[in-house]
Amino acid sequence: MTEHEHTPTPDLVTEHPEQIPGYTYGTDAASDAPLTMEELDRLKEAVWLTADDEQALREAAGILADQADDMVTAYRARLHEQPWLAPYSGHPDGTPNPEYGAASKPRFDRWIIDACTRPLDQDWLNYQYEIGLRHTKAKKNKTDNADSADQIPLRYLLSFTAVVIATARDYLGAKGASAEQVDRMHSAFTKSVMLHVTVWTRAYVDPANW
Amino acid sequence: MTEHEHTPTPDLVTEHPEQIPGYTYGTDAASDAPLTMEELDRLKEAVWLTADDEQALREAAGILADQADDMVTAYRARLHEQPWLAPYSGHPDGTPNPEYGAASKPRFDRWIIDACTRPLDQDWLNYQYEIGLRHTKAKKNKTDNADSADQIPLRYLLSFTAVVIATARDYLGAKGASAEQVDRMHSAFTKSVMLHVTVWTRAYVDPANW
Repeated sequence: MTEHEHTPTPDLVTEHPEQIPGYTYGTDAASDAPLTMEELDRLKEAVWLTADDEQALREAAGILADQADDMVTAYRARLHEQPWLAPYSGHPDGTPNPEYGAASKPRFDRWIIDACTRPLDQDWLNYQYEIGLRHTKAKKNKTDNADSADQIPLRYLLSFTAVVIATARDYLGAKGASAEQVDRMHSAFTKSVMLHVTVWTRAYVDPANW
Repeated sequence: MTEHEHTPTPDLVTEHPEQIPGYTYGTDAASDAPLTMEELDRLKEAVWLTADDEQALREAAGILADQADDMVTAYRARLHEQPWLAPYSGHPDGTPNPEYGAASKPRFDRWIIDACTRPLDQDWLNYQYEIGLRHTKAKKNKTDNADSADQIPLRYLLSFTAVVIATARDYLGAKGASAEQVDRMHSAFTKSVMLHVTVWTRAYVDPANW
């Protein structure tokens, strides 16, 4: 964790997410996703998220909940090693914007918990679409009134997903689960992450190509 | 493996890929990628592909080479469980097209080996861009003179990546490597797959958003 980032109150992330500023999950403030539940069901099949995976995700949630903030801190530390990415989280000239980082962090933390616990329903679909929009010119910076670059290029969103997936294994194994259980949770987490990121990409792409 | 699919001669995939029909890696027939080596270097950083990962991929190649055809067979078996995907690999009405499947399979098999062995140079960039084009209206069906749907929607390309990543672990562990070594190879393979798929998406997206 850099000196500029402050760990949010754990209760806010795990117990009272509705109090996280800008976290509009399940509310009318989240955008209506231009996707049907049938499309979501097909994407769930495409990532091959099974009932056993959903159970494994619930188990993963218990392991990751108090590590989520550390995970996001680690993601950001890695991102900060890539100076050409600085304008997307900092000011336009790449100088740090600790207020923006602090404001967005509890939502990023909460996403890890949501990815393990939320039912795949219309609220899920709407909020994932909203997250996608917040990476693009449609809504980037607006939630936190920031002045960073107005869109995270799709290629960086996708490529960084590798880090989220690959590094998850150690966190899943940090609380004494068996190797077999870690395998199972890691596989389920991989599928969940790819399902989320796939829906996020909808905001970047001509619907005819998506 | 379905009765319609025929395992290609292993030598063709592992030793003489230049003889695989439509496999234009390193030739002038592969499209010139509209990406610079600097952009590729940044994507490599974004997935966090380290020198140790590159070594792990070389080790993975030895383990996966004679399993690549089985992996692709398993991918396709899973895809065939999703009837709404049939038009992308079969005829437009969803009936099977075994000739198309057989023609494209050695290239898919070879991709797994390439993902573990090819240097990330201009030839790599050009051929990955070419693979992306072959998923879109620009080049879908043309290589094999097929009549399937003219584009694989981006959302299915991305979501199915979860299956490729999640199922890789068992194949990497099938030849007696230690759990620690499987972890290392699986992490590296995850990063390599996401790097490849990220470049493939270039063909789907307005360059201003990619």
